[in-house]
Amino acid sequence: MDTLNQYEKYLREISKLNSAVALLVWDQRTYIPKGGHEARAEVVGKLSTMAFEMSVSDELGGYLEALERQDGLSEAQAASVRVVGKQYRRTKAIPATLFEQYVIDRSRSEAAWEEAKANGDFALFKPHLAKMVDYAKQFAEYYGYQDCPYDALLDEFEPGMTSRELKTIVEPLREKLVPLLRRLMEDGTPPDGSLIEGSFPLDRQHELSLRALRAINYDFEHGRMDDTVHPFTIGIAPGDVRITNRFIETMAISGLMSALHEGGHALYDLGMPAELHHLGLGNGASFGIHESQSRMWENMVGRSLPFWKLFRRDLVDVFPQLSSATAEDLYRAVNVVQPSLIRVEADEVTYNLHIMVRFEIEQALFDGSLAVADLPDAWNTAMEKYLGVRPSNNAEGVLQDVHWSGGMFGYFPSYMLGNLYSAQLLATIKREIPDLDARIESGDTKALLDWTREKIHRYGQIHEPKDLILKVTGESLSPSYFLDYIEAKFFPIYGL
Amino acid sequence: MDTLNQYEKYLREISKLNSAVALLVWDQRTYIPKGGHEARAEVVGKLSTMAFEMSVSDELGGYLEALERQDGLSEAQAASVRVVGKQYRRTKAIPATLFEQYVIDRSRSEAAWEEAKANGDFALFKPHLAKMVDYAKQFAEYYGYQDCPYDALLDEFEPGMTSRELKTIVEPLREKLVPLLRRLMEDGTPPDGSLIEGSFPLDRQHELSLRALRAINYDFEHGRMDDTVHPFTIGIAPGDVRITNRFIETMAISGLMSALHEGGHALYDLGMPAELHHLGLGNGASFGIHESQSRMWENMVGRSLPFWKLFRRDLVDVFPQLSSATAEDLYRAVNVVQPSLIRVEADEVTYNLHIMVRFEIEQALFDGSLAVADLPDAWNTAMEKYLGVRPSNNAEGVLQDVHWSGGMFGYFPSYMLGNLYSAQLLATIKREIPDLDARIESGDTKALLDWTREKIHRYGQIHEPKDLILKVTGESLSPSYFLDYIEAKFFPIYGL
Repeated sequence: MDTLNQYEKYLREISKLNSAVALLVWDQRTYIPKGGHEARAEVVGKLSTMAFEMSVSDELGGYLEALERQDGLSEAQAASVRVVGKQYRRTKAIPATLFEQYVIDRSRSEAAWEEAKANGDFALFKPHLAKMVDYAKQFAEYYGYQDCPYDALLDEFEPGMTSRELKTIVEPLREKLVPLLRRLMEDGTPPDGSLIEGSFPLDRQHELSLRALRAINYDFEHGRMDDTVHPFTIGIAPGDVRITNRFIETMAISGLMSALHEGGHALYDLGMPAELHHLGLGNGASFGIHESQSRMWENMVGRSLPFWKLFRRDLVDVFPQLSSATAEDLYRAVNVVQPSLIRVEADEVTYNLHIMVRFEIEQALFDGSLAVADLPDAWNTAMEKYLGVRPSNNAEGVLQDVHWSGGMFGYFPSYMLGNLYSAQLLATIKREIPDLDARIESGDTKALLDWTREKIHRYGQIHEPKDLILKVTGESLSPSYFLDYIEAKFFPIYGL
Repeated sequence: MDTLNQYEKYLREISKLNSAVALLVWDQRTYIPKGGHEARAEVVGKLSTMAFEMSVSDELGGYLEALERQDGLSEAQAASVRVVGKQYRRTKAIPATLFEQYVIDRSRSEAAWEEAKANGDFALFKPHLAKMVDYAKQFAEYYGYQDCPYDALLDEFEPGMTSRELKTIVEPLREKLVPLLRRLMEDGTPPDGSLIEGSFPLDRQHELSLRALRAINYDFEHGRMDDTVHPFTIGIAPGDVRITNRFIETMAISGLMSALHEGGHALYDLGMPAELHHLGLGNGASFGIHESQSRMWENMVGRSLPFWKLFRRDLVDVFPQLSSATAEDLYRAVNVVQPSLIRVEADEVTYNLHIMVRFEIEQALFDGSLAVADLPDAWNTAMEKYLGVRPSNNAEGVLQDVHWSGGMFGYFPSYMLGNLYSAQLLATIKREIPDLDARIESGDTKALLDWTREKIHRYGQIHEPKDLILKVTGESLSPSYFLDYIEAKFFPIYGL
């Protein structure tokens, strides 16, 4: 067997372990009885460690070294050596003892965050957060970077992205978005969102989400939707990508929107050929590109007028009490803009502003201009500046997100990039499928899915995000498409 | 770390792999989407192979060898060395190449059986069955035995049981049971079973089974019940033992009885201390003892008058159309005796006769007095002799059970032993808890559970079944308790 075969066989063995871990985790968050948690943690720990050890083994290192010098690799094989090799080197760069200590401190940090958030008490979390920042700084030195340590962290989530480049996107976006929001709020007439509030039995909401998933071609022969506390998407295997959802009794379509969001992630994963999974390229080009696929189905489809012209019938069928609402009413009701304190509840206009607050803070933490102790103030000040609202306590402020407690710095920009990518992609799609709206309205959502499969999904991680977006849209990422999309959509809704 | 610690740690690593495999299999039979099956088979294969390799490794052999010579082991530790060592030697005894070929031929045999059963065509299955018998004969030689090869197979399911001993139980049982059945059928007045037939929505049946499981103290913090094609019990971890169930729309309590049966298995598994699980002693004393626990809750509780005095209220609450049925009516309706062709549909009186047919045939296959080609005739003749019914085709005859296609010879007697053990145990229980019936009628099923936990469950595999039954009931296994139980129960029901 030649090196390439051995390498591919080795990756498949890792992916089998990861598949088992994914199912164990899925069960942990869906169906496991309480009494199973303790033993489960140990089983997940064992299999994760085995997969981790395989991913940093000298055996893998040997294959990579040989293949990096080998000619005649296919595009996918070469990408595999690049992507797997990069992750191999990043992981190997961290001394084992440092990483072990990090893992221990990280679970303490996550536990402390949970308690701190429940009590709105930043002081409880502060020492742990300081440790997490310190680890991330050390890791950044080990990973290496050109300009600044933060770039080394960003690269984990958005390969090839730098702080400098991100600023050239964020700043013009912010300059337009803050006044745009102010104009909507001060001069616009808000739509009536109360229409879709009331009492909506959870099992009916579940049924509605299933219908929505069918409407966007999520294939239940290759996935499922189960109820859980936090919605998520999880790939168990190339042909088995599951989502979970949660429903709020008073809100008719909150769960539906989550279903479309997670469904978008799942469609991306299901659109990658098994061959790429087997080469370790089955994770999506980046977190940002992944988010572009979920945002596209959630916002650009799910909050569009054509979708509600199509889907109103199902909504009314499931909730007859909404039968007097027109498609236009529903479209307006799902597009209320309201600056709020909580990121995960934010609408399309304000969402990116929440991210900017976090991005700004992360940069300042890593260039040394902001101390952990000063975080709450920095947070509240930025919220007021960009969104015009100020948290009255840290639970609805700096403590609201789990990410930092787990050492995930550089993750937040992915959400914003997802919004921007999806708008830029949509502009291209509308050029290439001029009758997209009419198709969606008539139930033909397949045209859009096929386009994303052909242009994005089938490449998996073969291309870095910047190359992919250039290849597909003909230009580099620009915030102008998102701004145009927001203006074109929300000014009419707000009567401007 | 001393050898004992290393040994225990090693067993825990195996049990983590087995726990992952159990969850993967549970999901395969419950929630996996169709597209997940192909990859899943490979993941299960990998982890099972890893666990298998650990269970026959030289490392484990070394620990066992050292511990077999070590003094001062606790009762549980010594039992662990005996049970794990026995399995180690049995597995090691089979040459690896022979076992690999067996595994391949076994999947072919299982597939052939499925097709043969669907077509009622024994000829399709015959060559595969012959191969399976031949493998089992070879394995028996490798395992070793005193009297006859069949003993080596029996020992897998009922440690310490021999063909000779089993005959001393089966023959007197058959001598009484065949005429007893004839008398019931010829002289008795059958109860009205049509009472609980009709149309019973599956989701209500599901609810009814949940209530029955709660009634017997199955703890949903340590388990769950999910719908599937064939009911089964599966231990994912010491604190997580799940059951599955299936429901038949026309039969009000068929699923309920399955729930009690699987619930009985699960209660046994949950009653074993985690310490025994960690020592590889968490599987029950034998298949027969395990079956005694499921039969106890299904038949001796679930088909008893006190239970229906207790549970009638729930039944009527779930199915108001049954409100005119008294507890006595229900008790009689669930105790119709009817010789039939299919084992899994058999009642308490005829069930053991189905097993005798299989036991007789297995013995004859392995002492060489019966050829595989002559199986259908032998089957049909025995069915007619013991049960008075003759299959009109092989699908409802010799092809009905999956066991032989998977090479499981010596398994069937466990079902009968379970029935006999449970009757003998019940006699002891009624001596030690004289007001058992009154307790069950009043909802106190905990007294029975506590008794089985104290006398049986907590020992796991520490005792061999014959020692356990002697210790608990004061005598060796005798069929007389079962015969007394059947007479005392069914003669009054049949007006004799």
